[in-house]
Amino acid sequence: MAFTVTILGSSSALPTSNRSLTAHVLNADERFFLIDCGEGTQLQLRRFKAKLGRLDHIFITHLHGDHVLGLPGLISSLNLLGRTNDLHIYAHPDLKKILNQLLAHFFTHLNFTIVYHLLNSCSFEQIYEDSKMTVHSFPLKHRIPTCGFIFRQKPRLLNIRKDMIEFYKIPVKQIYAIKCGEDYMTDEGIIIPNSSLTFEASHPKAYAFCSDTAYNEDIIPYIKDVDLLYHEATFADEDHPRAIETFHSTASQAASIARLANAKRLVIGHFSARYKDITPLLEQARTIFPVTDAADDGLMFDI
Amino acid sequence: MAFTVTILGSSSALPTSNRSLTAHVLNADERFFLIDCGEGTQLQLRRFKAKLGRLDHIFITHLHGDHVLGLPGLISSLNLLGRTNDLHIYAHPDLKKILNQLLAHFFTHLNFTIVYHLLNSCSFEQIYEDSKMTVHSFPLKHRIPTCGFIFRQKPRLLNIRKDMIEFYKIPVKQIYAIKCGEDYMTDEGIIIPNSSLTFEASHPKAYAFCSDTAYNEDIIPYIKDVDLLYHEATFADEDHPRAIETFHSTASQAASIARLANAKRLVIGHFSARYKDITPLLEQARTIFPVTDAADDGLMFDI
Repeated sequence: MAFTVTILGSSSALPTSNRSLTAHVLNADERFFLIDCGEGTQLQLRRFKAKLGRLDHIFITHLHGDHVLGLPGLISSLNLLGRTNDLHIYAHPDLKKILNQLLAHFFTHLNFTIVYHLLNSCSFEQIYEDSKMTVHSFPLKHRIPTCGFIFRQKPRLLNIRKDMIEFYKIPVKQIYAIKCGEDYMTDEGIIIPNSSLTFEASHPKAYAFCSDTAYNEDIIPYIKDVDLLYHEATFADEDHPRAIETFHSTASQAASIARLANAKRLVIGHFSARYKDITPLLEQARTIFPVTDAADDGLMFDI
Repeated sequence: MAFTVTILGSSSALPTSNRSLTAHVLNADERFFLIDCGEGTQLQLRRFKAKLGRLDHIFITHLHGDHVLGLPGLISSLNLLGRTNDLHIYAHPDLKKILNQLLAHFFTHLNFTIVYHLLNSCSFEQIYEDSKMTVHSFPLKHRIPTCGFIFRQKPRLLNIRKDMIEFYKIPVKQIYAIKCGEDYMTDEGIIIPNSSLTFEASHPKAYAFCSDTAYNEDIIPYIKDVDLLYHEATFADEDHPRAIETFHSTASQAASIARLANAKRLVIGHFSARYKDITPLLEQARTIFPVTDAADDGLMFDI
């Protein structure tokens, strides 16, 4: 099952000629989950081949313009593309009012319904669940109410050994029970232990999105052991005072969070436009957490 | 004096992977005039090296999302870049309310003033003037009130022949009068005719922007003899019924307007995303008006 993240924008509030505004898209088995939607996101989604028809859920961390101003245009385009399915938006309650005002100005009629899921930015909460994954939100520490998100695949059933199905001629109706861990009893009454019939499914993957936020160890329990952690690193270490002032993080702080959370891999992003070259930020992070990458527009992570 | 137009976006309402939403930027002697501001315009301005610090005037044809949704992000970025100069926006009166609502949501404080110039979309009106150029708006024919714009350089003073200045030792204080067409009288009382001292300045250039609009010959007087006419051609000729329905133009209609207006050059754009290849539209236009180009993001016209 695909579980890949594509970075659509890697700049902080001020975009540059090669870094667009914040948005990530998670491809979970060809269903697309959008996280944040800065201006230009619909253009980046097209550029990087996301299937707009399979985008049903949009998660917005907070209501700063660089994380949401792509929504009206994206919604307009989905409408023009003939969408009729509900579109689910998970965001701070105020977004509904803002979007409704804009949509009233610019669209006579949407052919689909926007279902708003209002986020509580004060606690850890499950906000989405389907047969294969869950999404939880948790509080980040920014100038306005802000949520992080963690997308977790559900543990999968055991894999069954095809050779054993054939050998014991196991009927189809028994397969699900065996995949759930039960033993199998043959017609002759012999019990075949489950361990002879199955092997472990692959480890369920998790991806956490933490932007925008000041350094905040309180999030560690929510993102513990995550496979891919995206954590903002708006500033280089030497600009720590500016990070404190604006409730953002430095490269080393992002790396410290990754290390404390025992993340398998870290990607830093949301870089201030003041850095023409972000190599020093990457080096600062790698000193603390070696398995760090720097976000770049179009960069894809297969988790 | 530079008088160049760069196309920042050439798609109609639905952007594609290589066509962004409508915006043109006119560089008039390193002052930048923006016409329309679809989503992503600030990214395109950076990509195509417009100087944001010298962008003081933004002209909005009409309040469809694909022509205005780039404004909040652009204004935010100008603020982050430290702008303090007034920003002049020429648009339908409703824009002020829409933008004010958005700015109230997303910005605590702008460090500059937005000066709104409210357009009357029913008549031909001068809306801007400085020492070098004028801008007029005129009515287009679309589903909502829509203006076209014509940017005209003012006729320039005569050029003075430097060799004649030296030969007659003409004092500096006389130069302006000679450039205005006066003769020169030497200390000996000899009258030197102006034609011996000057030569014609280059023809003042004009650029007209006509989008979005149904075919409308009423605009011909306003754009007569224009050096560069941008006219939308959302549809190919075979989709004429759709053009009528949506108050847009076909490629041949754009070309007919150019021919009737005696334009020197035509550029068509605002192409529907249904056309993967716009060569047929270009061919249809060139059959009627040979000096036609197809808009493309980043394409620059030196007028």
